[in-house]
Amino acid sequence: MQAQIIAVGSELLTPARLDTNSLFLTERLGRRGVDVVRKVVVGDDEARIAREVRRAREEARLVIVTGGLGPTLDDLSRDGVAEALGKPLIEHPEILEWIAERFARHGRKMTDNNRRQALILEGAEILANPNGTAPGQYYRDEAGIVILLPGPPRELRPMFLNECEPRLDLLPSPLRYYTASLRIAGMGESDVDQRIGPIYSAEPRAVTTILAAPGEIQLHVRGQAATEEEARAIADAVAEKVAAELGDRVYTRVNEPIEQVIGDLLRSRGLQLGLAESCTGGLLAEKITEIPGSSDYFAGGFVSYSERAKIEWLGVSAATIAEYGAVSEECAREMAERARDHAGGAGKAVGVSVTGFAGPEGGTEAAPVGTIFIGLADGGETVVRKLSLGKERDRNRELSARSALDLLRRRLLGL
Amino acid sequence: MQAQIIAVGSELLTPARLDTNSLFLTERLGRRGVDVVRKVVVGDDEARIAREVRRAREEARLVIVTGGLGPTLDDLSRDGVAEALGKPLIEHPEILEWIAERFARHGRKMTDNNRRQALILEGAEILANPNGTAPGQYYRDEAGIVILLPGPPRELRPMFLNECEPRLDLLPSPLRYYTASLRIAGMGESDVDQRIGPIYSAEPRAVTTILAAPGEIQLHVRGQAATEEEARAIADAVAEKVAAELGDRVYTRVNEPIEQVIGDLLRSRGLQLGLAESCTGGLLAEKITEIPGSSDYFAGGFVSYSERAKIEWLGVSAATIAEYGAVSEECAREMAERARDHAGGAGKAVGVSVTGFAGPEGGTEAAPVGTIFIGLADGGETVVRKLSLGKERDRNRELSARSALDLLRRRLLGL
Repeated sequence: MQAQIIAVGSELLTPARLDTNSLFLTERLGRRGVDVVRKVVVGDDEARIAREVRRAREEARLVIVTGGLGPTLDDLSRDGVAEALGKPLIEHPEILEWIAERFARHGRKMTDNNRRQALILEGAEILANPNGTAPGQYYRDEAGIVILLPGPPRELRPMFLNECEPRLDLLPSPLRYYTASLRIAGMGESDVDQRIGPIYSAEPRAVTTILAAPGEIQLHVRGQAATEEEARAIADAVAEKVAAELGDRVYTRVNEPIEQVIGDLLRSRGLQLGLAESCTGGLLAEKITEIPGSSDYFAGGFVSYSERAKIEWLGVSAATIAEYGAVSEECAREMAERARDHAGGAGKAVGVSVTGFAGPEGGTEAAPVGTIFIGLADGGETVVRKLSLGKERDRNRELSARSALDLLRRRLLGL
Repeated sequence: MQAQIIAVGSELLTPARLDTNSLFLTERLGRRGVDVVRKVVVGDDEARIAREVRRAREEARLVIVTGGLGPTLDDLSRDGVAEALGKPLIEHPEILEWIAERFARHGRKMTDNNRRQALILEGAEILANPNGTAPGQYYRDEAGIVILLPGPPRELRPMFLNECEPRLDLLPSPLRYYTASLRIAGMGESDVDQRIGPIYSAEPRAVTTILAAPGEIQLHVRGQAATEEEARAIADAVAEKVAAELGDRVYTRVNEPIEQVIGDLLRSRGLQLGLAESCTGGLLAEKITEIPGSSDYFAGGFVSYSERAKIEWLGVSAATIAEYGAVSEECAREMAERARDHAGGAGKAVGVSVTGFAGPEGGTEAAPVGTIFIGLADGGETVVRKLSLGKERDRNRELSARSALDLLRRRLLGL
């Protein structure tokens, strides 16, 4: 089955707002073998919405319209879809009562505008919205299915999971699907593809997608077969071969972020983590602390951006910086060792450091912009890795942080 | 004039990738009075691309196609547009030579696939691409304009600025446009709209857009008139009244990020900044160091995530934490003062601290999840501000960091 997503809302046509609901929907639909083949964003305009719904229905069996279900006169998704389907909107007394009650519970009076949210397409099923006022709608005829979902993600997501997926499960389908996911660190996209292309190409019953971001690759293998067990066996077999080929570059088989993998490793080893960051400026610490519960293993970090911070706060020797510079293997080594010592010392803590020229200006002849040193110190030998990147500040910072995370993961695993 | 944007690329239909080029293009087009009324994402499929181009040309004078200009067989934007326009693609010898030279310069041999990048629509102008191999194309006929741009932002952006905007400038237009921008901190969207709605509604010659993100509002006022001077006068007059109404909530009139405004203030006052972050985990430092040149005024930060880091690294007294807890006004106060002292001391440095429960778990009866304290210490009286936010970890961290930035800005301005 193919799907198209129509995101409605004039705010989604401004320079500051993107339709992110479609990412969630694409991911959920992909798990069941439904491919999103086209996405459209239109403003709050009844005729445009109707036109897009008609177009989408000509091309795909499943059409999802997100947003435009609120109470204001700008919320026109109901009207646009009704126009496209040639069906009237009917005020639903129970929904109306439910909305009125909701208002009463919050001590407010329902305005007339809010009656609009009780308008339901003739023949549509109502999708309950425990997280907001506007219900969703599910309409099905010979031409296919049209689903109307509210725009706010915290209303849309549970509604799709709890109200739409069970309905989609009931559709007759000759195939079942299962997706196996891997994440890979420390390799580029073309490298990965070159090595595993022959593996996934050899299995026509699986669809493999490679998603690349700086310093990280995600791989999704979707198996399809008559039963879910078979689909799972197909996907898992491909994932197994990919994992064997890429070895320890694969850092998770359960689709977790690397920060989570590292957190679990630190926790299970009873180790504390200490950081000393210069050019990443706190980005590495920010990533580590994105994981709830990271206080179990993260002692903290020094954003030692100045010489003062490197020497006086962290304890790097002034002589090292004077002799080798702050962007040097020697400085990275001392930064990592001092971070380790501050976090509990050898045997109890690991220290990770990053120092470099992130650009776009700066650098020296010996260490031009894009030169980054990453250090790691635990009880054993301190290691320093040198990166030679480009001139893009944001990209350099992101790649440095990702590289430091992978170095830490590998050390914790003894690789 | 109205525009539509067609983003081409199967990767843009996966759960991990969004078309962000359209945000840049929408912003640039908006400045000249061109509204983007529809955005479409399609995969690498010639027939689909052709269909979307035909549809878009029926509805808008300007159609921009992004992506799908590379050398692989999947890169089909040229072919799709040619099909839609009924024009042949012609191999352009100079482009071919230029591509071959580019390959030679990098010591590689040009493969046959790369010849595809020299295919130009009959009648199209070539848009130079100094940052990549594939040139852009600019085609114009009675029905309107079609522009083909490469997908990578670092190729697309300069090409649009340097090659497309000068061409769009030459189009006959009865109106000229000018956009005045303001950014606002410390107010919510509905608050802002309520106060300034009457101001911008009273000026029909300006279009005002409010873009809201957590902790920050951007306001763009686009004036339109027969001459650019008049357009500017209209936009500036509205911006002036808005600024007068909102007062010191407006932190920039030249569309800079608040981190830049703060950086300029610190530099001009000869002050160093020191940070002490707990629940934001480095996010605040990361924001400060996004600005190139921030090493001029940013001494560094402590990501004092553990008690050990707060007491031993930063120097908060153990008694304070034992008596009041790490999430308390008293702890935030000491953290800010110690950060100031480490960064150079009163009169020479400012210290800013954040401590709180970001959630989703944790918190105490006295300080439930969402309780955040922000401290600021300079030469004068140390201030602490308390926030009571929700349970969403990411949002709490972002709002806390933004709130700390605004507190710092206000103190530096003596507000």
